[in-house]
This record gives sequence, structure tokens and C-alpha cells, in this order.
Amino acid sequence: MNDVETRTRLVREARDLFAACGYDGASIRAITKAAGANLGAVTYHFGSKRALYEAVLDVIFGELAERVEAAAAPPGPTPDRLAAVVHALFGFFEQHPHAPRLMLHQLATGDGIPAVIVPYLRRNLAAIRHVVEDGVRTGDIRAAEPNLVAFTLISQSVWFALVGRNLPAILGEGAPEAFAHRIEHHVADAVSRYVARET
Amino acid sequence: MNDVETRTRLVREARDLFAACGYDGASIRAITKAAGANLGAVTYHFGSKRALYEAVLDVIFGELAERVEAAAAPPGPTPDRLAAVVHALFGFFEQHPHAPRLMLHQLATGDGIPAVIVPYLRRNLAAIRHVVEDGVRTGDIRAAEPNLVAFTLISQSVWFALVGRNLPAILGEGAPEAFAHRIEHHVADAVSRYVARET
Repeated sequence: MNDVETRTRLVREARDLFAACGYDGASIRAITKAAGANLGAVTYHFGSKRALYEAVLDVIFGELAERVEAAAAPPGPTPDRLAAVVHALFGFFEQHPHAPRLMLHQLATGDGIPAVIVPYLRRNLAAIRHVVEDGVRTGDIRAAEPNLVAFTLISQSVWFALVGRNLPAILGEGAPEAFAHRIEHHVADAVSRYVARET
Repeated sequence: MNDVETRTRLVREARDLFAACGYDGASIRAITKAAGANLGAVTYHFGSKRALYEAVLDVIFGELAERVEAAAAPPGPTPDRLAAVVHALFGFFEQHPHAPRLMLHQLATGDGIPAVIVPYLRRNLAAIRHVVEDGVRTGDIRAAEPNLVAFTLISQSVWFALVGRNLPAILGEGAPEAFAHRIEHHVADAVSRYVARET
């Protein structure tokens, strides 16, 4: 392995182990072993375990921000653009089931949202804000407050990523896959009704 | 201390330590010491650490279910009844900041929702379902699906309990207390718009 490969593998294995065991639970020994690297590789490539953790968050939340921006960018009816953002979030969490778990570990410690992901969260908010502002300007939607639209959109999507697979049993619903699709549609619908013009 | 006092103190101290340190992180030694009980008290009163943990969840989520049912019960306009449920959730989480943390630790382990709290979650859902069904029957709201209304109401409220105190800094908003009030109002508004009749 060259340096780039080793670095990439360390980030990938660290991502999975942090998600499974939490920050404290994932040892440098376990991470380097899983990545097929020597014990000093974390220090060599990142300087510290904390810096490796932040590199993991950087990769994951960077990808999320890119997806949200790409989903929000194309012009079209405002409800469709907001539904595309919901779809981006559901797709991202489906492909990265470890992402909410990483956030959970962090939040559970009471340390709050790590500084490294704040710029990405702000990019997500800015993408949604632009969609709302476009819609208000063209009269497509009522003058809803962008931050509140973002809260309603993101909170429901992330909450589903966190507990969704437990819900069908509690609600007496059927197959988890059909349920995920139904909730994605529901979140887009709830956001669309929230911004709808009063008639 | 008599037995009832000891049991109550163990549950209270365990609640705080599980919330702060997670299930594995909170030792029986630390819990009994904080409760001023001897090391054998957990086994004597609960049988096991796991049973003590479930007793903690039982107390917390039992209180939550009672509050939600009490908030949902009084008759009135459907949006007001749903707003009362939102208010009950925000009030509960404000008074019990450890409650979402306990849930987080549990969810972060990937073990899902503990079986002991499922009956309470179903009581919350049933309370919201009755409000929605009443409103649909009287024509107060459109024929929204009760489980979806509950999802929109609960997901936003719990998400705020989990990350709310981090949001003002990210959003560039002011005082956390005013922000909590604003978001509570917003969640009630979003739910109200979701169930509003199409005109």
C-alpha cells in the first residue's frame, strides 16, 4: 500500500469502528489492525486519534453537503426541489447507516456537535435556504422562514435515519423498505404543506 | 433509609449516571455510592444492573406517557390539542434533559429501542391517534394518517431535545431559551399545517 491507500483505509476502518464502538471504544490498535497498517500509522498520517476521528467526520459530512447542494440546485417547482433534498438525505443515510450512529455517539457524550462538521451543516442549511428564498421570490410558496423549513425537513429525515428500522414493529407496519419509502414521501409532503401558500 | 427510599435513590442516581456515562460506563459501584447504599443494594432491589436500567427507563417513559395522555385528553380544536401534546414533549424534555441522552446511548449501541419502553411509546402514539381521529370525524382536519401525524410531531420534538442547544450557534440565533419557545411554536404550527383541510 502507498500512503494515499493507507490513509483511505484508515479513514474507512475508523469510520466503521467509531460507529460501532464509539470514540473511546475504538482503539488505535483495532483501527490500524483492520486497515492492515502498522500501529504508528495513525500518528504518522493524522497526528492523533482525535484528528483521525475528525477526518472521518470530514469525509462523511462533506459528502452529505455535496449531495444536498446537488439536489437543491436544479430549478423547478419549490416542493419538488425540497423533495429532492429529502431524497438526498434518505439516500445518504441508507448508503451510510453508520453516519447517524457517529453523530449519536458524539451527542451522547454531551460534547455537542463537533466543530469540524459545522461548516457542512451550514452548507446544508444554505442550500435549503436558497430553495426557500427562490420560492418566496417567485410566489411559488408563502413567506416561510428558511431556517424553520430546514428544521422541519432535516429533523424528520435524521430522526428516521436514527430510529426508522425500529418503527415498523412499534407501529405495526410491514416491510422496512416500503416503510422507508413511505416516510420519505411523507416528509416531503409535510414540508410541502408547511410552505404552501394560504388560499 | 428504608427500602423504598433506597430503591428511589438508586433509580434517580442510576438515571443520572446512565445518562452521563452510558450503560457500560456507569458502574454498580458508582451508582450505589452516589445513592449512599451498599454495593449489594442493586442486586437486592433489582436483581441485576440491567433490571435497574429498565426500572430507570420505566419511570422516565411512564411519566412521559402520562404527560402526553393528559395533554391530549381535553376536548377542543384539533390544532390546539396537538399543540398541547407538543408542549408536553418540550416541557418533559426541558425538565428531564437526561431522557434523550439515555435514548441516545441505547440507540448508539445499535440495540434499538428497549422493549421496556415500547408500551409507553405505543401509549403516546395512541393518544395522538385519538386526537387525529376525533378531528377527522368532526371535520376539524383533513383525513390525515394518525401515524404520520405522530411521526411529524414526535420526530421534530425529540430531535430538538437532542440537538436543540447546539442549534442557535449554527443558525446564528440568539438566546437558547427564546429559541426553544420559538421551535416549540414552530413544531405545533408545522403539525397544524400538515393536518389542515385543503381549501
